[in-house]
Amino acid sequence: MAQAKIKPHTQKAGLPPGTPVYTDEKKSETVEIEVIDYQKDRCEEFHFQAVEQCFPFKNKPSVTWINISGLHDIDIIAKIGVSFDIHPLVLEDIVHLQQRPKMEEFDSYVYFVLRMFSFRDGNLDEEQVSILLGKNYVITFQEKPGDVFDVIRDRIRSGKNRISREGADYLAYSLIDVIVDNYFVVLEKIGEEIENLEDELLVNATTESLHKIHRLKRKILSLRRSAWPLRDVIAQFERIESKIVSKDTQIYIRDVYDHAVQIIDTLENYRDILAAMMDIYLSSVSNRMNEIMKVLTIIATIFIPLSFIAGVYGMNFKYMPELHWRWGYPASLLLMVVIAVIMLIYFRRKKWL
Amino acid sequence: MAQAKIKPHTQKAGLPPGTPVYTDEKKSETVEIEVIDYQKDRCEEFHFQAVEQCFPFKNKPSVTWINISGLHDIDIIAKIGVSFDIHPLVLEDIVHLQQRPKMEEFDSYVYFVLRMFSFRDGNLDEEQVSILLGKNYVITFQEKPGDVFDVIRDRIRSGKNRISREGADYLAYSLIDVIVDNYFVVLEKIGEEIENLEDELLVNATTESLHKIHRLKRKILSLRRSAWPLRDVIAQFERIESKIVSKDTQIYIRDVYDHAVQIIDTLENYRDILAAMMDIYLSSVSNRMNEIMKVLTIIATIFIPLSFIAGVYGMNFKYMPELHWRWGYPASLLLMVVIAVIMLIYFRRKKWL
Amino acid sequence: MAQAKIKPHTQKAGLPPGTPVYTDEKKSETVEIEVIDYQKDRCEEFHFQAVEQCFPFKNKPSVTWINISGLHDIDIIAKIGVSFDIHPLVLEDIVHLQQRPKMEEFDSYVYFVLRMFSFRDGNLDEEQVSILLGKNYVITFQEKPGDVFDVIRDRIRSGKNRISREGADYLAYSLIDVIVDNYFVVLEKIGEEIENLEDELLVNATTESLHKIHRLKRKILSLRRSAWPLRDVIAQFERIESKIVSKDTQIYIRDVYDHAVQIIDTLENYRDILAAMMDIYLSSVSNRMNEIMKVLTIIATIFIPLSFIAGVYGMNFKYMPELHWRWGYPASLLLMVVIAVIMLIYFRRKKWL
Amino acid sequence: MAQAKIKPHTQKAGLPPGTPVYTDEKKSETVEIEVIDYQKDRCEEFHFQAVEQCFPFKNKPSVTWINISGLHDIDIIAKIGVSFDIHPLVLEDIVHLQQRPKMEEFDSYVYFVLRMFSFRDGNLDEEQVSILLGKNYVITFQEKPGDVFDVIRDRIRSGKNRISREGADYLAYSLIDVIVDNYFVVLEKIGEEIENLEDELLVNATTESLHKIHRLKRKILSLRRSAWPLRDVIAQFERIESKIVSKDTQIYIRDVYDHAVQIIDTLENYRDILAAMMDIYLSSVSNRMNEIMKVLTIIATIFIPLSFIAGVYGMNFKYMPELHWRWGYPASLLLMVVIAVIMLIYFRRKKWL
Amino acid sequence: MAQAKIKPHTQKAGLPPGTPVYTDEKKSETVEIEVIDYQKDRCEEFHFQAVEQCFPFKNKPSVTWINISGLHDIDIIAKIGVSFDIHPLVLEDIVHLQQRPKMEEFDSYVYFVLRMFSFRDGNLDEEQVSILLGKNYVITFQEKPGDVFDVIRDRIRSGKNRISREGADYLAYSLIDVIVDNYFVVLEKIGEEIENLEDELLVNATTESLHKIHRLKRKILSLRRSAWPLRDVIAQFERIESKIVSKDTQIYIRDVYDHAVQIIDTLENYRDILAAMMDIYLSSVSNRMNEIMKVLTIIATIFIPLSFIAGVYGMNFKYMPELHWRWGYPASLLLMVVIAVIMLIYFRRKKWL
Repeated sequence: MAQAKIKPHTQKAGLPPGTPVYTDEKKSETVEIEVIDYQKDRCEEFHFQAVEQCFPFKNKPSVTWINISGLHDIDIIAKIGVSFDIHPLVLEDIVHLQQRPKMEEFDSYVYFVLRMFSFRDGNLDEEQVSILLGKNYVITFQEKPGDVFDVIRDRIRSGKNRISREGADYLAYSLIDVIVDNYFVVLEKIGEEIENLEDELLVNATTESLHKIHRLKRKILSLRRSAWPLRDVIAQFERIESKIVSKDTQIYIRDVYDHAVQIIDTLENYRDILAAMMDIYLSSVSNRMNEIMKVLTIIATIFIPLSFIAGVYGMNFKYMPELHWRWGYPASLLLMVVIAVIMLIYFRRKKWL
Repeated sequence: MAQAKIKPHTQKAGLPPGTPVYTDEKKSETVEIEVIDYQKDRCEEFHFQAVEQCFPFKNKPSVTWINISGLHDIDIIAKIGVSFDIHPLVLEDIVHLQQRPKMEEFDSYVYFVLRMFSFRDGNLDEEQVSILLGKNYVITFQEKPGDVFDVIRDRIRSGKNRISREGADYLAYSLIDVIVDNYFVVLEKIGEEIENLEDELLVNATTESLHKIHRLKRKILSLRRSAWPLRDVIAQFERIESKIVSKDTQIYIRDVYDHAVQIIDTLENYRDILAAMMDIYLSSVSNRMNEIMKVLTIIATIFIPLSFIAGVYGMNFKYMPELHWRWGYPASLLLMVVIAVIMLIYFRRKKWL
Repeated sequence: MAQAKIKPHTQKAGLPPGTPVYTDEKKSETVEIEVIDYQKDRCEEFHFQAVEQCFPFKNKPSVTWINISGLHDIDIIAKIGVSFDIHPLVLEDIVHLQQRPKMEEFDSYVYFVLRMFSFRDGNLDEEQVSILLGKNYVITFQEKPGDVFDVIRDRIRSGKNRISREGADYLAYSLIDVIVDNYFVVLEKIGEEIENLEDELLVNATTESLHKIHRLKRKILSLRRSAWPLRDVIAQFERIESKIVSKDTQIYIRDVYDHAVQIIDTLENYRDILAAMMDIYLSSVSNRMNEIMKVLTIIATIFIPLSFIAGVYGMNFKYMPELHWRWGYPASLLLMVVIAVIMLIYFRRKKWL
Repeated sequence: MAQAKIKPHTQKAGLPPGTPVYTDEKKSETVEIEVIDYQKDRCEEFHFQAVEQCFPFKNKPSVTWINISGLHDIDIIAKIGVSFDIHPLVLEDIVHLQQRPKMEEFDSYVYFVLRMFSFRDGNLDEEQVSILLGKNYVITFQEKPGDVFDVIRDRIRSGKNRISREGADYLAYSLIDVIVDNYFVVLEKIGEEIENLEDELLVNATTESLHKIHRLKRKILSLRRSAWPLRDVIAQFERIESKIVSKDTQIYIRDVYDHAVQIIDTLENYRDILAAMMDIYLSSVSNRMNEIMKVLTIIATIFIPLSFIAGVYGMNFKYMPELHWRWGYPASLLLMVVIAVIMLIYFRRKKWL
Repeated sequence: MAQAKIKPHTQKAGLPPGTPVYTDEKKSETVEIEVIDYQKDRCEEFHFQAVEQCFPFKNKPSVTWINISGLHDIDIIAKIGVSFDIHPLVLEDIVHLQQRPKMEEFDSYVYFVLRMFSFRDGNLDEEQVSILLGKNYVITFQEKPGDVFDVIRDRIRSGKNRISREGADYLAYSLIDVIVDNYFVVLEKIGEEIENLEDELLVNATTESLHKIHRLKRKILSLRRSAWPLRDVIAQFERIESKIVSKDTQIYIRDVYDHAVQIIDTLENYRDILAAMMDIYLSSVSNRMNEIMKVLTIIATIFIPLSFIAGVYGMNFKYMPELHWRWGYPASLLLMVVIAVIMLIYFRRKKWL
């Protein structure tokens, strides 16, 4: 239940704004710098050691995608900031890993910060991805190297897809599309967990079921907190009035927007389902309570009167005529049986049996 | 409880956007292609084997309605896309069967995706319907052949209704109207189920009632998720500023809009009723619990003191004067009766009896 | 609990839009056609058999109010439609008795559909009223003859009220005002029921109280579903930019608008009160449960130890010295009394007694 | 719990709009008419018997404040209406005592209706105040004479405050400010009641506490119903574009607006606190229930097995060797003690003791 | 639980608006007046005794920051008001310590009132901070001297940060940024408390846990009440169209705005977590209840039948053949064991054991 923890600005308190400070534990050892430069049917790939090697691509007419994996080396970020003329507050946001998804428009570039989700050993893994979209370049910043963007790389390499023909704006769209598609993968996993939990609840609702419901609620809350601003970011992206984004690409962005809305729809649906499961859990617990009480009541109400009769004939009064009757004992037993039967009939009529 | 499952983009992950992929199991064997071409009092009907046979109708001045039932043959969809100049993302949406109702306006056509509901063996059956409205043609895409649109066909054939005199926009309106009317049929069924459940609840609330409440809730949730965006789609359709839709038809669209609002009203009403039924269920369960406790308490509190008296006179002390009295036994019985009567009077005053 | 039922379009499914179909059981035998034609201090009243007799009034400069009571004769409605040039969809709405309150503006007239409430044997009775407001005529359609509009007739007849001096717009306003005032009468009745229920709840909360709470909730839900759109209708009426409505009348419409807002306020207030009553009911039920448990616990915990002592001295061991003591029996009784007193003190301190 | 009662239009039903009818019981015997006429450092006060005596002040250049206490004399209201050219609907609103706070702008005056609260013997007392703000006069209507406006009178008399230098708009602002300040006095009283109730809840939660929570909820609901529209009224007053209100005064109105927002904030806060108190009450009731059950369970589970043993050795079988053992009796007692101790250890481990 | 208390206008009631009255107990003995005057790389600091010493700085071209700690000396506030031409209502707001965060724009200055939070011995400490931003000066008013603004002082002194190069608007931004950062520190503390409480709840949920949940809820409510208007204040600050704020600074303000949104996000998240914890608490309480009932039921239902058998053979009938059988006693014991075993099997199957 670590999601209650926030890792806020404490380390930063006292520093002037615009100072990039990496606020999380290191997630990867080295910083990977990948560059893909493409134009129509030409595509070149590079793995650089030094960030300076990327800078010449800035002014090339071809589309350049620079991918930085690993954010703990503030130096690299700072150099990119200087070379690509990025506002210091943007640099700060890139390395500050608690950002809410947002889009910010500047004169020569657009800045996106998004959150990417994946499942690791049943836990939800969250990663921050920053995208800088310039006239003819895209720079992406990931916390750690990952394979999510591989599908994009493949499409670029093949040289046959729309992506190779379009500009940097379409590349940025494609990256966001992939991130949004990832939400669906996570949602499907959660959907499965919900289905399993539903079956479990119908068979045997334990305290563990309750904790599972709450763990699922937590996951959905995490996703919601990212999904709603994500939708707003994409809506903003669609409405952008910058020369950086072409009319054609806007139709595609509208499509991702629909996906984002669908994600939110699914999340709200899951929420309702979990609320109903909570109801079922509570009612199954209270049913079990009723069951227990019923058993106690039936046993007690049958035997208490019988024991009383036995008690009466266990009294030691000198003058108790029944005790001396020949059929006293069987008669008393018969009386007990009659009482028990009457009780049972009563319970059956009350539908307790 | 299969509604928790979503069948998302997983199969599609990695494919470039605009690639139509059929994401569901096949629902029908063959793809049916029906064409109705009409103008005033003339009306021709065709059943084609090959989709190419439809294409000549595109440029005819008469109104052409092409109905495709069965979406698993991607090829057919793709060919229509090329011939009618449909955007690849629209083609993708047509075959991707998890769409949220929406309307998209393009230069030469308007794209609608809607959801149609029907009842099958007590379960809610959901189907996606796509409508492409061009200047003088309407193309509809259904998951499987159905009889919902038969009423429209009959009206066209009769040649006397408004539909024969109006253009493609009125045809599209009529189709949407039929889909919306279908919601009312489903709502009426659910209304009946709710009424039956209400009667059941008042007579005998069991755990099964609770599950029924939740199943109804689920159905209403499904409908709500479609009904709200449906309303927005129709509102958008009404406000459209395209030459494709005539002023006259807009008044009709406003009418369907009112129906959509009424659907939402009814759904919200059902929701409130189900919430109240949940209250009644819970309170009936807790009343039964109280009943059980009352019986136990009455029996126990009456007999426990009596048994105690019997216990006292069952003690074996040597010197117990009462035991030797002539009327000791009847006196003790009398004492017991008095105590029992006092108890009964007490319970009656407490209104437990 | 008939409000769960909707009587939707099922009978209509398959009919082309604009076909008026009466969707309810007949509520009155004959259709009454009343006409009042007035101007300043002149006022004429007619009761016609045939609807055609009304048509000459259409073009008179005086204000004409045609009131149709009974909607099952589609023919009459259709004839009015032709003569007054009413859109077929409006005619359909007039006879289709599940309308949500709405206002629709056409070139030569404004159409209102409203809902009127009254109390009949403790049940809420709902009726649909349609109002057509033209340049110098008002046509009203009621489901059955009623006396609600009598106050308006009296004011017109007297010839001294503002209504006689003003045009058709003021007449339409007056009719809506009377319908809105009727809500207050219903609200007052419900207010009384709530007060009675509150007193009942404080004295003795039974399952019947719960059902009463739910019945009241239902009534309030019905009213809310009409009151919110009613408010919107009046707001629309106020903002109308038609020549049909004069500036002077708009101030009066603003006044009805305030009344509608007050109705909603009162309904929301009732809702909150009913929610609080639900709380009180539930807590009174759980208090009674506690009471029951307390009695059981007190009786059982006092007598169980005493019975145990009696049991011990009822054992048949050969060597039990106490049994042979001279004061054994009184001593054991004393022991029991002491234990009982300790228990009672304990319960008193726990505030259970 | 009289707040469920509304006193609606019933008495008025059937009367034409604009007919002032006093809808409440008389709250004061006579109608008081006070006039203060001031300008810079001059200030004159009058107590008139006849309302006609006020009329000459209408056209004086000095600021005139006419205060009418007591609204049951419709005649006086009607005469003012004629003399100051007030719309009949406004006159109706002044005497109809169930108004929602609102502001209405007319050509030559602005009409405010507000609600004033005070505490009387622990109950919330509500009064309607109407304010008519003209170019150089203010007319106020109170249900009964009160001392709330005395502070304003004192400030005017002193002749040194801003109020003496400013116009009628500032006087109207001052009156509203005083009414708003009165809400704070009421809120403070409620705040104290909440604090007392909180202490009571922590010590001993009884059914009376629940009723107190609900009574407080009711009061807060009443206040909320006035406070939200009050805020809107003041916002409207601030944005007014009439020559009647000067730029300078608007800054002051913005200040009262902030106060109104703070009142709403405090009310919402109180609501949350009461919801939390409800939680605490419910959980304290259920804790007591648990306590009761625990005591019963401990006593019963300890003594039931012991009684059983005593019962066994109370059997009358002829061949029961233990009965004849020398140490049978002490051994059986020892056995009982052992069982009791084991039970107690078990309960202690379960943390029930 | 002192937060229920409001300290409203009571002391002020009757005073004319614009009269500054200090409404709280004194929090510091003396009033500290600090002045920092800086420009590029020059920076001078002063500690003045008399407020008049600040006034010459008003017209200097350099940026002047005047910090007043301690608000009980109305005189000082009033003098500043005269000298810097501040509206009397602003002066009143500065010393009235129950303000809601707000921003007010005047011709020559902008007024902010904000709330600052800190943790003191586990309690949330709230302080009001007022900021007056003029063309080239900033005046801050704190309730008591504090060290929150020290980081700003250090940055100014160092002369190397952006703050030294920018104008008064950037200084105001920096102060607000520091106040917003402080919220994160408080949130982190609350996050820790929530985590601890979660662990406690899973191990052992007591009534104390419930009170802790409610105390945390209260803290979050307090923060929310400040955080929402804080966000609005910053949004207003960003959109300001005054010459006082430069374009460059606006980008920075957008950044603080994002922080404020993140604060609200975190607060809403905490709220959801606390609601879930409430659920877990309640369900753990009801589980314990079930546990107790189970133990009672198991013990009672096993021993009650056994005791009955013992009771039967404790009866004193003369003719009871079993009593005289040789193996009667062991047979009866065996019967009891058999019954007990059957019961235990039954309970095991019910999963109560």
